[in-house]
Amino acid sequence: MQLDLQQLCDQVAFHRSLNLRVRKSNGGVAFVATVGPEYLVDIEVETVHGGIVASLLDIAATFALIAGTDHDWVTVDLRVDYLRPVRGGDVTITGNVVRAGRTFGRSRAELVAGDGAICAVAIGTFASAAETRGAKP
Amino acid sequence: MQLDLQQLCDQVAFHRSLNLRVRKSNGGVAFVATVGPEYLVDIEVETVHGGIVASLLDIAATFALIAGTDHDWVTVDLRVDYLRPVRGGDVTITGNVVRAGRTFGRSRAELVAGDGAICAVAIGTFASAAETRGAKP
Amino acid sequence: MQLDLQQLCDQVAFHRSLNLRVRKSNGGVAFVATVGPEYLVDIEVETVHGGIVASLLDIAATFALIAGTDHDWVTVDLRVDYLRPVRGGDVTITGNVVRAGRTFGRSRAELVAGDGAICAVAIGTFASAAETRGAKP
Amino acid sequence: MQLDLQQLCDQVAFHRSLNLRVRKSNGGVAFVATVGPEYLVDIEVETVHGGIVASLLDIAATFALIAGTDHDWVTVDLRVDYLRPVRGGDVTITGNVVRAGRTFGRSRAELVAGDGAICAVAIGTFASAAETRGAKP
Repeated sequence: MQLDLQQLCDQVAFHRSLNLRVRKSNGGVAFVATVGPEYLVDIEVETVHGGIVASLLDIAATFALIAGTDHDWVTVDLRVDYLRPVRGGDVTITGNVVRAGRTFGRSRAELVAGDGAICAVAIGTFASAAETRGAKP
Repeated sequence: MQLDLQQLCDQVAFHRSLNLRVRKSNGGVAFVATVGPEYLVDIEVETVHGGIVASLLDIAATFALIAGTDHDWVTVDLRVDYLRPVRGGDVTITGNVVRAGRTFGRSRAELVAGDGAICAVAIGTFASAAETRGAKP
Repeated sequence: MQLDLQQLCDQVAFHRSLNLRVRKSNGGVAFVATVGPEYLVDIEVETVHGGIVASLLDIAATFALIAGTDHDWVTVDLRVDYLRPVRGGDVTITGNVVRAGRTFGRSRAELVAGDGAICAVAIGTFASAAETRGAKP
Repeated sequence: MQLDLQQLCDQVAFHRSLNLRVRKSNGGVAFVATVGPEYLVDIEVETVHGGIVASLLDIAATFALIAGTDHDWVTVDLRVDYLRPVRGGDVTITGNVVRAGRTFGRSRAELVAGDGAICAVAIGTFASAAETRGAKP
């Protein structure tokens, strides 16, 4: 049975606060997030907080592995590269598996602004939690 | 004139939602955060979302550089290592400068749980924004 | 005047010991390296030392920025992900610029084995050394 | 039976070329390396190649885990931060375990120049290879 990614995503209150809409895409996942004013560093310039950018990338990278393997993964480490300030409102985040093994996996994520500019990228190492999610009914 | 770190921190709504209390400490900074249920992944086990852990470490690493140089810094890249799940409630995050140069700096952060266990560490590269914050009255 | 990448590469004895052959490729650079037995961890299984893998990725990422901007860059930080053991002999390493700014740049590299498998990837932050190389006659 | 770290280190030709002398130190390991001219980027200023710096840090971080657990570890990913140019000759590299679990470990390394300046630091994730080394007689 395939996991319902949107349902899985929406179980987490923090995810709901980011208005995440998830779909499978090109062998990975793609999210649209609508980032509200509560996550902007300075209302005047509407720049999304770096920690929220990291959160979005972490979520996309994790879900890429979940979508690719049909079980859960836990972030072991994550590197985020900030390339451009991210404006509030709608942003797209894609996640793609680099390699998924039995005990650990690697995946990447990219955050793209409304104008198509890549604003941030991430790569991380994840530990398989096959037993955790897979055991759930 | 020295920056008021708490005031600087509280300018950001997201920081206020984490109930951050900041002080200088051992040549760096130390924050106590009270992480509420809106940032937990699973209310039952009260684990803080990995993106919030990354946010707290990013904030502490950035403020370590701010406190050490009296001007602002922008995160260029950040690596987070997740060592143990983080329970909700009060956590302590310390930030320390590794090296602060004219154009870029490096700093580290650690998140320590109430029982003293180190739950996550981070290291990042930051770009000096001396002109941005320094120019402010 | 465009830089001669091969000549620039061969100025370094360590590069010569890796038998690096460099060319521009798809907006980035591609190297073929022939890794000799002095850099294998275990002669029996012919696995390239992880530090040599990191070296090859660092070189390719740096040269991607050099090729893209026609001036030198210095590695600020580098993350390497090891995906598969690398056999000795000929390997291909590609480097591509993620973003090159005035003071900072970001680039990626991938090491691909003879059978086409991606064995390792890297991403790093680099500081512009425009004045250093650019000032040379 | 405790592993002979120096013997383990010297099994690798690349390690021997770096003249590594290893000892246990403060709950971790410390190496002295003598970096010869073949690993310098520019003989004139005697700066050690960044890839060799990464190699030394990777070796120290790996051996910290080996010394702490008495079995082998494989590098999964590594982040290196370059803080200052490293002169050739004798350098000291220390490695310390951040956390060693059953399947994953994390450790740090620092490279210190003869004058005591910290020139580079690293942190990495490692996979346990208990069966590999532990099974050896």
